[in-house]
Amino acid sequence: MVQDLVYPKKKQNTLNRYNSRGTYDLSTIHHIINSISVLHVSFAPSPEDPFPVILPMIGVMGSFEYPSADLNEPLDCYLHGYVSSRLMRLARESGNGLPVCIAATKVDGLVLSLTPNSHSYNYRSAVLQGYAKFVETDQEKLYAMQKITDKVVEGRWDHTRVPPDNVEMTSTTILRVSIETGSGKIRQGGPHDEPKDENRTDITEKVWTGVVPVYETLDAPVPSATNKVNSLPEYIQKYVQKVTSENREHAHEAVKEP
Amino acid sequence: MVQDLVYPKKKQNTLNRYNSRGTYDLSTIHHIINSISVLHVSFAPSPEDPFPVILPMIGVMGSFEYPSADLNEPLDCYLHGYVSSRLMRLARESGNGLPVCIAATKVDGLVLSLTPNSHSYNYRSAVLQGYAKFVETDQEKLYAMQKITDKVVEGRWDHTRVPPDNVEMTSTTILRVSIETGSGKIRQGGPHDEPKDENRTDITEKVWTGVVPVYETLDAPVPSATNKVNSLPEYIQKYVQKVTSENREHAHEAVKEP
Repeated sequence: MVQDLVYPKKKQNTLNRYNSRGTYDLSTIHHIINSISVLHVSFAPSPEDPFPVILPMIGVMGSFEYPSADLNEPLDCYLHGYVSSRLMRLARESGNGLPVCIAATKVDGLVLSLTPNSHSYNYRSAVLQGYAKFVETDQEKLYAMQKITDKVVEGRWDHTRVPPDNVEMTSTTILRVSIETGSGKIRQGGPHDEPKDENRTDITEKVWTGVVPVYETLDAPVPSATNKVNSLPEYIQKYVQKVTSENREHAHEAVKEP
Repeated sequence: MVQDLVYPKKKQNTLNRYNSRGTYDLSTIHHIINSISVLHVSFAPSPEDPFPVILPMIGVMGSFEYPSADLNEPLDCYLHGYVSSRLMRLARESGNGLPVCIAATKVDGLVLSLTPNSHSYNYRSAVLQGYAKFVETDQEKLYAMQKITDKVVEGRWDHTRVPPDNVEMTSTTILRVSIETGSGKIRQGGPHDEPKDENRTDITEKVWTGVVPVYETLDAPVPSATNKVNSLPEYIQKYVQKVTSENREHAHEAVKEP
């Protein structure tokens, strides 16, 4: 197994500040991408339009050629979501793929310090840059669809009506992004104040400092109006509990100094 | 008071699909931006670099010229966070400001349907496009710093050591984005399946369908090692409870059909 692989430090992904919080570790970056529900995907729409576009999409790391690859190995990012006709055209026209940037951030806490300037969030953030192309073969599409469905709820694919029929296969568009470079940033720990404020009791006796842990809670599932399965399946129940408790644990771990 | 203002539909922000979920309403879009802790800000780094860059930043809507402006009125977006030397240079060199795209998305639920294809998230998403410039005057900087600090915890500014001293003022960089256009997307409700699946009892008797509400919880605040204020101030306590209960309520409201 390949271990401790890192993304190359290039001009575009080199972190110039807070280096202690920065990481180029594949495993860490891929894990952040996989644990955040919605990714933001940016691309340049056309030479005449000065503004980049950002689309919210679902995405997951994977390797169709080496499906058993671990998160610490080189992987592609598979994206699913609303594909505008413009994005469709751009991705089709691009020979090597459309250059995109993918970002995902999760807030783990509110960091409250003595002065406004040192206020911050505890967070995990990952950014990938790469070339996006549409997945062409049904086999690879199926591979990505399963990974994306299982990202919503672990093991969900096997508990739904599969495989997708021909119409569903044709109407589904999946983008595969070959990653060129990536980076991650993690902020954890309490507030960091300066001695000029910490040594003044008139300030420290008045200003509460600390961290408010923040985490995503998955609440009790609500059956749809047309649901015919009386009791909530165990795999959903377990997933809901597992994710919430992992998220809570992570937010509390993030309170500790790194 | 100006009411029901909408962003102009231009080529770059027109939503071509799921129009029922789309909105151009200023109030809705500004509210989404203000209620999401971390925004993703995208820009084109240079003509030679094909990849857009995305930076996670804190941001808030406001108007320095009309501080009493409501969320349904035209506002700028003030951004604070790590400003790379590249972004710094680009924003300084740009005459009218650097074209940026700002995106914010919050997940409100996991939508579980009969088939993988109809799986989705309940979510709120806002995208703004505009020109970013550095705030030059101390007065406007202070205005933005207060709004940004109060975004972390409502009313926090007044409970910290203010005003920032000269060094803090100089070292703080705030970007003001003049908004050109914006759009929002909201997905709520349960799963939408097709009759071809809903009419098959072999499927409906096996596949649980419904929504898992998702919301951000603010947990009990953890004092820092150097904190000298013994009991948690009421404004923090109240804020933590209010935000968590509003988030929970929102996620459950989102389960209902729009």
